Formats: sequence, structure tokens, C-alpha cells
Amino acid sequence: MAQNLVEQTTDKIIEYIKNNNIQPGEKLPNEYILSTDLDVGRSTFREAIRILISRNILEVRQGSGTYVSDKEGRSTDPFGLTMIRDKTKMISDFYDMRYVLEPEVASLAAIHATDEQINEINLLSKEIEQSFSAGNDDHVELDIKFHSLIAKASDNMAYSYILPIINTSISLFNKNYTDEDAKKFTVKIHREICRAIEERNPLSAHDAMLVHMSNNRIAFKRLIKK
Amino acid sequence: MAQNLVEQTTDKIIEYIKNNNIQPGEKLPNEYILSTDLDVGRSTFREAIRILISRNILEVRQGSGTYVSDKEGRSTDPFGLTMIRDKTKMISDFYDMRYVLEPEVASLAAIHATDEQINEINLLSKEIEQSFSAGNDDHVELDIKFHSLIAKASDNMAYSYILPIINTSISLFNKNYTDEDAKKFTVKIHREICRAIEERNPLSAHDAMLVHMSNNRIAFKRLIKK
Repeated sequence: MAQNLVEQTTDKIIEYIKNNNIQPGEKLPNEYILSTDLDVGRSTFREAIRILISRNILEVRQGSGTYVSDKEGRSTDPFGLTMIRDKTKMISDFYDMRYVLEPEVASLAAIHATDEQINEINLLSKEIEQSFSAGNDDHVELDIKFHSLIAKASDNMAYSYILPIINTSISLFNKNYTDEDAKKFTVKIHREICRAIEERNPLSAHDAMLVHMSNNRIAFKRLIKK
Repeated sequence: MAQNLVEQTTDKIIEYIKNNNIQPGEKLPNEYILSTDLDVGRSTFREAIRILISRNILEVRQGSGTYVSDKEGRSTDPFGLTMIRDKTKMISDFYDMRYVLEPEVASLAAIHATDEQINEINLLSKEIEQSFSAGNDDHVELDIKFHSLIAKASDNMAYSYILPIINTSISLFNKNYTDEDAKKFTVKIHREICRAIEERNPLSAHDAMLVHMSNNRIAFKRLIKK
């Protein structure tokens, strides 16, 4: 099948979604109607649909049809981590990047967070403490949510998209995060971050996050030396 | 076709590539051999291959076969920009992110750049000046290359992957970059960035890039107000 014909068809479908303002979670017209409407053959159309599914632009719900995906075309593995061979270097480089980004993000969150977001951030901080006390691994997922929510509260689309990906990527290392001292530091500094955001104090939020990132980076360097 | 069977097959193919250390640009065994080897049906196998192509992990060369892609699984549209409706907000947010990242990146480039990279950075800076003098649009592409090369010279995998994507995304706005004063500023500050990297001076590289990013952000805000 001609590859550029398939590509043109994916473009046509994307245009169709935009022009008809079909929102994430809404259903696409059925195959027959849409392929006729766009004037493309059925097999080309199906191939284009498969590609849009793998690009997270569409999703199939079994027995129900094809929908515009809530992922809105964002890649689940944008950095190609699946294929990266030197993962330790990659993760170390991510930590360096977080060190630069997250203090700025916390500062913006102190300015832009909604009251609802502040409540949620506080709640997550408490749940992380409970997971530490219980000695389970829930804190790994919760910590990603905590930082992702702060990124969302920054009201910057680039941060709110990039940070969850970075944090998910490096989370496999947090599972080794058993150092009791490090946990105590984390509890203390998470509380400070929460307080600063709640008090709408950008500088304090920035500084607390900077200390947090420094501690994380030190812990990571210690870990890879073992 | 069962979707999870296809997913399992994509995972198997990825494992096969890694275990056999097939490098980017190298060829995959033919369909018959590999599908037999992995013990999966031909139609499932083909579907998995199509998905890996759309994920930039594999690529087809017409009449030659299937190869491991040089893109190494990195998404060409990781931010899902295709689907973003408020592009001005997105680009404004990207500028804010660049403002935080690029000075740090320039600082690292002053430490880690190879002599060859320094020559290339200098060359690109001169080519940008020539494009400004000639009054053509080449400087848009050249500017992306200039900043991407500095990111690469930082020796940080996260920066060297993320910054080219961000800069490409916002480049459409640079086409409106006709302000003669802004061009003069750019020429001057690009030269300063080059000199600081060449002199292995991280602080000067950081500061020159910070001034550059500030000027860019001011120019962008002026542009969207028009």
C-alpha cells in the first residue's frame, strides 16, 4: 500500500476531527461514512486508523467504535526510552534536568494553583507519609502524582506535559529508595513545598523544591555508586 | 485481531532487537524467519511491525526490507502538537521553559563541547549572520541547528533530545522575526555565546544565553500582541 496515501489519509482524519471539533472521548463516525466522506478506499482508511491509534490520537473501545483519545496524540514513550541502552546515564541526565525545572515549576504553582489543586497536593503529601509509615511501595506512584500535580498547577502546558514523563521514567530508581534518612528528608521537604504553595509564596516554594531536588540527586548518585 | 497479542509481539520484537544487539540502520531478519523464530502468526506479526514503524522503532526501505530506525523510537510529535488547539499558549509556555533550560545547557556546553562541536557552533553562527544579510529565511532552520548543537554539546541526553523538539515547534513564529533591531541583538548575543563556549567559560555562556532568551521572550510577547 502506498505509504504517502496512508499519510495523506491520517492528515485528512486529523483535519476532520479538528474541523468538526470532535473532543477527546467523543466518537468518530463509522468507517463506511467517514471513508466515503473523505473519499479514500477502505483498506487505506483502516491502515490510517491503525496508525492514529498507535499515535494515541484515536482509541478503539471494543464493540463500541473508534474514539478520539484522551491522550490527545501525546506519545507514551516520547523519549524512546524503550530503545535506550545506557539507562543509567539517561536517568542521571533527567535528574539534572529536573533540578533546573522543578524549582521554577514550584514557584509558578505557588502563583497559579487553584484551591482545589492545593487541597489535592496536600492530600498526596499525607498519603506519601502514610506509605512510608506502612513500609509499602505506594509512595513511588504517589510521588509521581505529587510532582505531576504541582506541574499542572504551574499552568504551563510544557511543564505539565514533560515532568510526568520524566518522573515516570526515573521512578524505577525510586523503588530502591529505602534509606530511612532520605525518607525523613522527603517528608519534611514535601511539607515545606506544600506550605509554600498554600501560602502563595513563590520564592519559598522555589527554594524548598531546590533543596528537594538536591537531596534526590545526592541519593541517586549514592545509589549508582553501590 | 486480539490487541494484546499484537502488543506482546511488539514487545517480543523489541527484545529480539536488543538481545541480538541489532543497531540503528541495521536490517531485521525477513518476515518468515523472524515470525517463526518468535512463534507468532504472520498477520499478527505484520500488524506488530506496522506499529513499530509508526513508533519510529523500525523503518521500511522500499524493495530492501525492514530496518531498525535511526530515530530509535523517539516520537516525531511527542507533545502531541498535532492535536493542540491553543498553539499560542503552548508556544508561549515553551518559551518560558527554554528560558529556564537554555542558560544551563549553554553552561554545560562550555564545559563539555568537543573542539569539533565548537567549530560547528561558530560556523552556524556565521551562516545565520549571512542569512540575515541576504534577507532570506535560512536563519530559521540554522537557528534550530545552532541551539540543538549547543544542547548536544552539553553532553546531557535529556537536553539534547528535548531542546530540538521545542525549538522546532516554536520555529514557525521565528518566521515573523523581521524586526531589524531583534536581528542585530541576535547576531551580537550569538557571537557572545560562541565566544564563551570557545573560552570554556560556563558562567559567561550561561549569562549570554539568559540575555538571548530574555530578548526572544520579549520579541515573542510583542509579536502576539500585534
